[in-house]
Amino acid sequence: MAKRQSRRRKSTNTSDENAVPRSHAYRQLKHPFEAQRVFSDDAIERMHNMALRLLEELGIKMLLPEARSLFKAASAIVDDDTLMVRIGKEIVDQALNSAPRSIRLRAASPTKEQLYENGSMLFTAGSGCPNAYDIERGRRPGSLRDFNETLMLQQSFDIIHLLGPSAEPQDVPPNLRHYEMLRSQLTLCDKPIFTYARGRAQVQECFDLIKLGLNLSDDDFIDGCWTSTVINTNSPRQIDIPMAEGIIDFARAGQISIITPFCLAGAMAPVSISGALILQHAEALAGITLAQLANPGAPVSYGGFASNVDMKSGSPAFGTPEHIKLSIGSGQLARYINLPWRSAAGSASNTADMQSATENNMGLMAALQANATLTIHAAGWLEGGLCFGYEKFINDVEALQTIAELCTPLPEDEDTMGWSALADVEPGGHFFATEHTMKRYRDAFYPPLVADLSNNGSWLESGGLTSTQRATTIWQNTLRDFKKPAHSQSAADRIAGYIEAGIARGGSAPAGG
Amino acid sequence: MAKRQSRRRKSTNTSDENAVPRSHAYRQLKHPFEAQRVFSDDAIERMHNMALRLLEELGIKMLLPEARSLFKAASAIVDDDTLMVRIGKEIVDQALNSAPRSIRLRAASPTKEQLYENGSMLFTAGSGCPNAYDIERGRRPGSLRDFNETLMLQQSFDIIHLLGPSAEPQDVPPNLRHYEMLRSQLTLCDKPIFTYARGRAQVQECFDLIKLGLNLSDDDFIDGCWTSTVINTNSPRQIDIPMAEGIIDFARAGQISIITPFCLAGAMAPVSISGALILQHAEALAGITLAQLANPGAPVSYGGFASNVDMKSGSPAFGTPEHIKLSIGSGQLARYINLPWRSAAGSASNTADMQSATENNMGLMAALQANATLTIHAAGWLEGGLCFGYEKFINDVEALQTIAELCTPLPEDEDTMGWSALADVEPGGHFFATEHTMKRYRDAFYPPLVADLSNNGSWLESGGLTSTQRATTIWQNTLRDFKKPAHSQSAADRIAGYIEAGIARGGSAPAGG
Repeated sequence: MAKRQSRRRKSTNTSDENAVPRSHAYRQLKHPFEAQRVFSDDAIERMHNMALRLLEELGIKMLLPEARSLFKAASAIVDDDTLMVRIGKEIVDQALNSAPRSIRLRAASPTKEQLYENGSMLFTAGSGCPNAYDIERGRRPGSLRDFNETLMLQQSFDIIHLLGPSAEPQDVPPNLRHYEMLRSQLTLCDKPIFTYARGRAQVQECFDLIKLGLNLSDDDFIDGCWTSTVINTNSPRQIDIPMAEGIIDFARAGQISIITPFCLAGAMAPVSISGALILQHAEALAGITLAQLANPGAPVSYGGFASNVDMKSGSPAFGTPEHIKLSIGSGQLARYINLPWRSAAGSASNTADMQSATENNMGLMAALQANATLTIHAAGWLEGGLCFGYEKFINDVEALQTIAELCTPLPEDEDTMGWSALADVEPGGHFFATEHTMKRYRDAFYPPLVADLSNNGSWLESGGLTSTQRATTIWQNTLRDFKKPAHSQSAADRIAGYIEAGIARGGSAPAGG
Repeated sequence: MAKRQSRRRKSTNTSDENAVPRSHAYRQLKHPFEAQRVFSDDAIERMHNMALRLLEELGIKMLLPEARSLFKAASAIVDDDTLMVRIGKEIVDQALNSAPRSIRLRAASPTKEQLYENGSMLFTAGSGCPNAYDIERGRRPGSLRDFNETLMLQQSFDIIHLLGPSAEPQDVPPNLRHYEMLRSQLTLCDKPIFTYARGRAQVQECFDLIKLGLNLSDDDFIDGCWTSTVINTNSPRQIDIPMAEGIIDFARAGQISIITPFCLAGAMAPVSISGALILQHAEALAGITLAQLANPGAPVSYGGFASNVDMKSGSPAFGTPEHIKLSIGSGQLARYINLPWRSAAGSASNTADMQSATENNMGLMAALQANATLTIHAAGWLEGGLCFGYEKFINDVEALQTIAELCTPLPEDEDTMGWSALADVEPGGHFFATEHTMKRYRDAFYPPLVADLSNNGSWLESGGLTSTQRATTIWQNTLRDFKKPAHSQSAADRIAGYIEAGIARGGSAPAGG
């Protein structure tokens, strides 16, 4: 097979390597490849129609009276005893007409703004984890320190585009937690902010904090979206009170809710790929419609986070063939209704091993094939979301950066094609020192973050560490070298009094959740 | 974010799980997705033309006199002093016309036959490794025992379609090694056989052993290909003596040679993606042309195994963005000349960690995007090919099986879509026990090979092992339960005398290398 090439460029010293002037700005990315299909266009149309029929004939249970009222006012058939809402096709159609196709995600730094639209490729770190893990400190319940550290990691890598709550700060009481989650995002980061929909009072206070912290007028605040939330339906066919409140409140405030049924095929959804997608589609359409009824034209995202249950453990599975097919099918459905949409990667593995890499990589591959607008849980998600892994995050960032590099179009000019270099080098020679190489080599290739390509002898000499072990140093150095964004102190000052007053009042209890 | 679902199907006992009657026959696979592009069609045409110009104006160095004679007879301009051959476009065009588009790969078992043509998706295990590694026995120079064990692993997983020399049996003298490599393949396996092109004498003896072992007449032997070889050019622009002999001998015997320049951008090839591909294309065209001059219509494959050098270590890199782009570009070039082609995955990592998984997964993703006919080094390749990892192999097989599952089209009938199941389940209920689920759940999802999806408590109780550690038991059980194919004893008997006589003669020295 391939013969070994023995000539290797002499290793330069570390300071030189770090001086390689290569851009790492993986910011406003556009999908490089065409979307793939797992269903025929005809089947997608039938699935859409079955979802509409599901909403019209069987209906969806809406626990929030205000949501039922909105549907009633739009001529849906509402039964206030069973709490069921039956939604006609024309109501859904009208909502799909008024939902925007392109949404401007604002950020404290204009360079971190994003267009949330089909064609964009955005990533969020693993989010919603009650626990955190790193090699040095082991597995523990998430704390504010973990929440802040994981935010700093998210902030430090351009490939993470939207902030997410990676580690739940369980050491902060639930009624005060939203204050700290917003304070940290506003003072440590300059990327689009995440807000949990944990009840009206908390949501309103989070909006207030964003306006205060970033010094936004009411008009500024609705000029694009300054924050997003993820709305999970209670599959099958149910939307609970805090989720419906979240949809309504975000819509009225002009902020984006990402309507994401979590349809596990064989558990909360039918066991077939198409059956699970039909349920997901119906529930997402119901949520999108509610947002549009609350505020026509409100920013809203379609969401697909369907996977299968593992037949052995009954756990949610990620990166499986079924997950990939469901992601690609979700993309087909999102494009059918012409809305931007979110997908998800992630891992069920308990540790940062090959399983965890392959699960996440397969989910990322699915998102790429599916042209997902946003892929959540793209880095650091272990245990199916029960734990955020620091070393796992660093290793997943490598995979994400690899994919991001595919977004740069290749130059097609004759000079790049290197005819003169080809002509310069004799048969059996090498290209190390040609002018063509010397001119380009510093910027030619992606420089690995955690991958170590040294030979076995050198690798053993430097300790024989796995990429998981090497990642410890990387996240530690990243935190050590972390610099707060320019607006940090002024934001901190502007929100301090509001939070103090809130704490003095006893904060706001979260709703349901 | 996603709320945890607490209801989980009760775990069944192990023997029940193993009884799940699901087909694992990942055999004659067809690519499920459309090929992607990294270059415009126009750029690909220009690259093809630059490769032709390279062959016509600059030429390629052919060390073998017989190869130069074949080119001279075809009106190429040959300089026997410089050994350079300048090949006109019309000579290449004629070769591309006579090369077959679809090649039948024969195997001892007809169920393991393959069509080598564009659209097929074939995988070979990591090959050509001088060393072997597993957790129990550590890293060691490859031995015949390792060679045999790795063949048995290849034989045991349907996702490995063609045999490959995973671990070099260094304890067998080079002049006798080909006997043992063929004996093992003929008696342990029933899949398409690999033969090294290590000189005429060895190649002829390998052909003889295949005919004897599988009881083939001369006519049988040329009815399809019973064996393949990989031909590496000596980039840039050189083909050495054993490689040219291999091309000629395989072509004349009607067996397939896979012409694979190993173009490392920035080392043996230009530093740009397009430049490296132009060199690869020129060298592959030269090899393909030589095969067709030796025997018009001979089975031959285009090969692309281009990657970049790591800027830090100077080592070949795998699974990098450049590797992915080069693979997709190779696919575009192969389709431009309408020939089936091989790609490669693999890993540069020193151990079966996340790096190693991500590198290989990215290479597999590239092969999928590029619609590679054959992907070599798809499982088990560590250290850029210097070491075959047993646990790595098992973990990579999981990734391959995940991809293979994508080849099964999704049913689009109304019953599968599950309308009645959707109507059966109340809002907030579950689908565990619906008729729709009960009818399908045993076969509905891919059952993981090494992935463990149990929760953290169960995982810790069962030892808290990584997927790499769990893989040890899997390869050990696979070897323990291994059954030789039906033809094993008769093949062994038929070749025994031939090998004995060869050994008595002192075998045959390999040529070059």
